[in-house]
Amino acid sequence: MSNQIKYLLDEEKLPKTWYNLAADLPEPAPPVLHPGAGQPVGPDDLAPLFPMALIAQEVSAEREIEIPEPVREIYRQWRPSPLHRARRLEEALDTPARIYYKYEGVSPAGSHKPNTSVAQAFYNKEEGVKRLTTETGAGQWGSSLAYAGNLFGLEVEVYMVRISYDQKPYRRALMETYGAQCFASPSDRTEFGKAALAKDPDSPGSLGIAISEAVELAAQRDDTKYALGSVLNHVLLHQSVIGVEAMAQMEMADDYPDIIIGCAGGGSNFAGLAFPFLGAKLRGGADVRIIASEPAACPSLTRGTYAYDFGDTGNLTPLVKMYTLGSSFIPPGFHAGGLRYHGMAGMVSHIKDLGLIEAAAYQQIGCFEAAVKFARSEGIVPAPESSHAIRAVFEQAEQCKREGTAKTILFNLSGHGHFDMAAYTDYFANKLEDRDYDEASLQTALAALPQVAAE
Amino acid sequence: MSNQIKYLLDEEKLPKTWYNLAADLPEPAPPVLHPGAGQPVGPDDLAPLFPMALIAQEVSAEREIEIPEPVREIYRQWRPSPLHRARRLEEALDTPARIYYKYEGVSPAGSHKPNTSVAQAFYNKEEGVKRLTTETGAGQWGSSLAYAGNLFGLEVEVYMVRISYDQKPYRRALMETYGAQCFASPSDRTEFGKAALAKDPDSPGSLGIAISEAVELAAQRDDTKYALGSVLNHVLLHQSVIGVEAMAQMEMADDYPDIIIGCAGGGSNFAGLAFPFLGAKLRGGADVRIIASEPAACPSLTRGTYAYDFGDTGNLTPLVKMYTLGSSFIPPGFHAGGLRYHGMAGMVSHIKDLGLIEAAAYQQIGCFEAAVKFARSEGIVPAPESSHAIRAVFEQAEQCKREGTAKTILFNLSGHGHFDMAAYTDYFANKLEDRDYDEASLQTALAALPQVAAE
Repeated sequence: MSNQIKYLLDEEKLPKTWYNLAADLPEPAPPVLHPGAGQPVGPDDLAPLFPMALIAQEVSAEREIEIPEPVREIYRQWRPSPLHRARRLEEALDTPARIYYKYEGVSPAGSHKPNTSVAQAFYNKEEGVKRLTTETGAGQWGSSLAYAGNLFGLEVEVYMVRISYDQKPYRRALMETYGAQCFASPSDRTEFGKAALAKDPDSPGSLGIAISEAVELAAQRDDTKYALGSVLNHVLLHQSVIGVEAMAQMEMADDYPDIIIGCAGGGSNFAGLAFPFLGAKLRGGADVRIIASEPAACPSLTRGTYAYDFGDTGNLTPLVKMYTLGSSFIPPGFHAGGLRYHGMAGMVSHIKDLGLIEAAAYQQIGCFEAAVKFARSEGIVPAPESSHAIRAVFEQAEQCKREGTAKTILFNLSGHGHFDMAAYTDYFANKLEDRDYDEASLQTALAALPQVAAE
Repeated sequence: MSNQIKYLLDEEKLPKTWYNLAADLPEPAPPVLHPGAGQPVGPDDLAPLFPMALIAQEVSAEREIEIPEPVREIYRQWRPSPLHRARRLEEALDTPARIYYKYEGVSPAGSHKPNTSVAQAFYNKEEGVKRLTTETGAGQWGSSLAYAGNLFGLEVEVYMVRISYDQKPYRRALMETYGAQCFASPSDRTEFGKAALAKDPDSPGSLGIAISEAVELAAQRDDTKYALGSVLNHVLLHQSVIGVEAMAQMEMADDYPDIIIGCAGGGSNFAGLAFPFLGAKLRGGADVRIIASEPAACPSLTRGTYAYDFGDTGNLTPLVKMYTLGSSFIPPGFHAGGLRYHGMAGMVSHIKDLGLIEAAAYQQIGCFEAAVKFARSEGIVPAPESSHAIRAVFEQAEQCKREGTAKTILFNLSGHGHFDMAAYTDYFANKLEDRDYDEASLQTALAALPQVAAE
């Protein structure tokens, strides 16, 4: 094996198709249900919120779905993204393991999110949509949709959780730089927002309220649709471009992963890297362990229940069968804003239930320790979300050292931390705390799960 | 010509040598002088501050200087950096011009600075140095040296201008993430700092004071040297990797620049892109217009005098013949911290004096307007420094439109603006002002230029 540290694919090797895991599953994932009737939802139920092309992708069982040329044209600015061999990190850990990472921080918005925001903007534009609404917490998704909407001439309205809006003005500035409008949520632009403000004029907001505002506006206006940055099947599909590229790059490296690791909030960056490898395994290819790494403060896969639940706190969405902490669960404060979701993508939950993947949960201080060690070895400062993947990689690399086995570990470095330096500042000032979720709150939230006749 | 938008060089095409413009100049640049004696400085005079390998590069007339393999090994993580065709920007400007940009924001520190920090750290390590000191204003250079020093196991002490230290905690966090120590300057760690604090305990600091602190410590300690991020010949040499790559990439694009543009503070990113093309022209190759773009608030090339001057405000350095506003000149406040230098690299000044390059100065609001238009077209948010290059590109592209000529414009996008979103926030809030330098202050500073017998 050479001492190469970076594997780049030629531009002409940019994938022409996304990979859809549904085609290779031993059994299909449970259907999405109407909250009231308990019946599977149909395309018409989703049409007010999403363009038909995305609804079709949501339920498709085709293995390969063509990436439209205008989407590839934009992907080409930063894709294929690099795959790096982390040789200096291996040395620092003194491990016999070979560690590779796929780096998604090279996108204009600095994370994997544009892989789907560009696709979603394209399909919406194709179907004559004029405006997209969405919610954002820390701002990664909002800025990625702002970027993509602007490229296709779509207006983008982002409802940003009030406390983040006030505390993270730089993410907001990024959205405005891309031409989007960013509103603090709750806002006085929606009935739902007005009601929330009437109850509490100083409401700090929540992702649940922001989703409700964005959904309300999309449902109301004919020229407006809603966009979601994770969880849904079509989002996971678009992210598969990560894993399809990584398979070709591992071949360039003349190596193959024994272990694949990704951090998991809603599940999209994890699925994006892992699904193509899992699909190959399900079709009779090489075995691979797949580990989802999540925060101990919001541990849906490791402490949640596999049950039908709402996707939002406001309980406006259809019901998805997923690993969930309950839609009313509120995690304690921690710095990885992108991992603060109460549930997990239905497809990721399904394969966890089938025993096809593992999950592990980590406290934030250990994740920042790993992130700093990574930055000092590889030069790249990871996003706090991605640091959860790195923490899990360290654990596997240390086990390889103890056992004297030279396993190949591949992980997704889903984004850089340039917009998250406040978190690093707190870490260096010893201001971070490890926080467990509150067990009593979890039990209350789980007890409030909706009753579903079909189960 | 294809519709390609990104030109990547294979890793094996990473340049093996830096390019040294001194080899092709029609006449050599004036020597660097002792401040007292007025005699040219020799290697021994510089030895307390720099390792011999860098001193040798400072005065070398060799055209090609080998890039050491350990430096190339680190370069390979992000180099060759991409060269992009800005097709969406061309459309937005409705110009017949073809616009290309070399993107240096892909480095771990987010700018071109690691091209030289890695090389400087390598040579210092080779000569047994244990510790590097440096100054930083906004923090781009400090974080790049922190990154490089860490990779070679060197301690790095950064003296950061007090007001930036207080106002820009995130750049400081980045330096600490890379393991460097960052001190507010003036500090109580040096005689010069103590004297400054005695005079004014609340001193906001200045680049001049910070340089003096870093130089004092390096001169005092046997195991410590000093590192500078621009201006010097060896820094410009290391940055030439940008232009050497760009020449190969323009060949891939089957095109050649009619106009090359870079922003210029100390001159290193400008020189890095332009010098290899200028060298080719001087050796009988294709003609090319070269434009340095500088801030109207600190316009050394367009309003300065070509004269011997000190490199620092404290007047501790040797004398360099350069375009200067006077070492006591203090520019008004503006957001491109990397362009706030009173002088210009000696080599850049020399070729300006010879008429081989042009210069233009721009106010900041127009630069931010251009930067936002660029971000909305190309997706990348430029550093405020780089926005000055973009403003100059727009001017040329608009002239092409007026004249109906399809010129090829190549510019250096020297860094991203992820750490500079406060500046964008101010821009969107209409809080920015265009500020001219004060003419009376300039005349006072120029009147205070040192008298040099040799002139």
